[in-house]
Amino acid sequence: MTPGELQALATRALEGLGLAGDDAARVAEVLVMGDLFGHATHGVLRIESYGDRIERGAIDARARPIVEDLGTALARVEGAGAIGPLAGRVALDEALARAKRQGVGMAFVRDGNHFGALAPYCALAARDGFALVAGSNASTTIAPTGGREERLGNNPLALGVPRPGGDPVILDMAMSVAARGKIRAALKRGEPIPDTWATDREGRATTDPRAALDGFLLPFGGYKGYGLALMVDLFAGVLSGAGYLTHVRSWQDQPDLPGNLGHFFIAIDCSRLGTAPWLEERMADFAAIVHDTPRADPAVPVRLPGEIEMEKFARHHREGIVIDAAVLAVLEKYAARTTPP
Amino acid sequence: MTPGELQALATRALEGLGLAGDDAARVAEVLVMGDLFGHATHGVLRIESYGDRIERGAIDARARPIVEDLGTALARVEGAGAIGPLAGRVALDEALARAKRQGVGMAFVRDGNHFGALAPYCALAARDGFALVAGSNASTTIAPTGGREERLGNNPLALGVPRPGGDPVILDMAMSVAARGKIRAALKRGEPIPDTWATDREGRATTDPRAALDGFLLPFGGYKGYGLALMVDLFAGVLSGAGYLTHVRSWQDQPDLPGNLGHFFIAIDCSRLGTAPWLEERMADFAAIVHDTPRADPAVPVRLPGEIEMEKFARHHREGIVIDAAVLAVLEKYAARTTPP
Repeated sequence: MTPGELQALATRALEGLGLAGDDAARVAEVLVMGDLFGHATHGVLRIESYGDRIERGAIDARARPIVEDLGTALARVEGAGAIGPLAGRVALDEALARAKRQGVGMAFVRDGNHFGALAPYCALAARDGFALVAGSNASTTIAPTGGREERLGNNPLALGVPRPGGDPVILDMAMSVAARGKIRAALKRGEPIPDTWATDREGRATTDPRAALDGFLLPFGGYKGYGLALMVDLFAGVLSGAGYLTHVRSWQDQPDLPGNLGHFFIAIDCSRLGTAPWLEERMADFAAIVHDTPRADPAVPVRLPGEIEMEKFARHHREGIVIDAAVLAVLEKYAARTTPP
Repeated sequence: MTPGELQALATRALEGLGLAGDDAARVAEVLVMGDLFGHATHGVLRIESYGDRIERGAIDARARPIVEDLGTALARVEGAGAIGPLAGRVALDEALARAKRQGVGMAFVRDGNHFGALAPYCALAARDGFALVAGSNASTTIAPTGGREERLGNNPLALGVPRPGGDPVILDMAMSVAARGKIRAALKRGEPIPDTWATDREGRATTDPRAALDGFLLPFGGYKGYGLALMVDLFAGVLSGAGYLTHVRSWQDQPDLPGNLGHFFIAIDCSRLGTAPWLEERMADFAAIVHDTPRADPAVPVRLPGEIEMEKFARHHREGIVIDAAVLAVLEKYAARTTPP
């Protein structure tokens, strides 16, 4: 199907779940971009679990996030039980509007829920000429370095910089070596995992995906990744006024309660820094220096962060995108609740 | 000696190099904090190489960084050939002043030089109640993932959050698994290094410190650390208007020319987010959850980022600090150029 068709279907599915038309379209945009970047786990697939939580009362389809003005350049968004990506979009808009007026703008989110991947927010900001730093906490899956109990989340951090006339450069990364989804996939295939991905419950490295799922994810790069995950939680959780560490509620364990996640967005208006041709030339030069690095393996190109995602995005726009049939069936089920257009 | 004595001596040494008294004290403060945190490589030791570059004309001891106002919350500081930590202090002050007025404030530095460690800037911001995100680029020591030529620096990133009535939590990390200084130390001792630290010139993992120093540092956590190093350079170098990647000049190879480094500081006024008791309680709870994690090894405590540095800082204040005799001799040599107090 075309990206436009997927956007229309996802919007109708979210309307079927009770979201107002404009909110549904903005939430759908974040999820559809997840699919277009090749990250189906953060795409329209999520509408099923969002629907489940709406039906359980943990998310209120009609809730409107509330914006608190904390300064001309600073806002805090109270999720107010709204679906995650809606609170995310409201906060991103606040950060961008403030950056437009003051040069830089920031918005925190408290009482947030799962809000898709961070890369789509970076791409939306870049489309309008803004660089973005964004982060979120998450329910606990990682044990602190030196500990043997999960106390912090796989808190993603993203940075994005626009490239006028070209693709933005976006890094969107979680703090574990590998995502839990990859371990679940290995379990499904009956295959072992590398012993660097996770530990068992006792904190011992393991290659058994089942033991790993019962245990803890390992942060990437040891104590540096652990430290970064903690700092993201201090900004996204502690400073925002949301839950943090073990106070963030798990989607799996407490599906009837709001997650109380926290996020943050810091936007910079790049037009204050120089003209579009100035930035375009610098970004092109930066990309060329990286791409022209002599290769370790002649067959493997040297990449910029997010480049593979940008190529998938372009290809999905050219050739269309295939969405898993089971996911499509869920979207169509929810969409059928609306009056056909 | 006491921290106060070290501060006085370092200030006089910098005055001896030609800095105005107030500038000398502010630069000394950043370097002395480096020593007090236990990072002598980013402490007053650096005054020797600063002095060398002043004598070569690459740094102008009397230069004043120039502040450009790019928005009520955004500034750009032109280093103008000034000593690195002076440009850093001016930019930090701009970010803090803007955050005080607008809630969040940001300052870029272009035409910067080596400016000490980032942790002292985070500690200075935290002392006044501000959270800080800061980064810098550096001359090239790391090969991109998949490449075999150094094209990016060991670009440090730091995040700090104040804890009212207690120590701030500060993460200050470079992007390599290990610093070049550690490899130089292994070479000096005639010991091999772990094969995860660096590669030789051909991009092959090595345990030979000499081959490693001829080769490239490896980023921590593989492509994630590499991606983060690139993003720090995009913010600190490309957006600031400074040099980036191979355009940053090496301290070693071109000592007669300014480094043209770039930095950035983003400050958040935490008093806008809640009262000091509110933040104090949340930070104490956060620290307790981390510290109370069951330990993998009962003898090894679970730590917060920067905790060891904070303990050293307190101990050096209690017991005094020992500075290497050769470093002291350099400071005294420069200090002797001033009129004795």
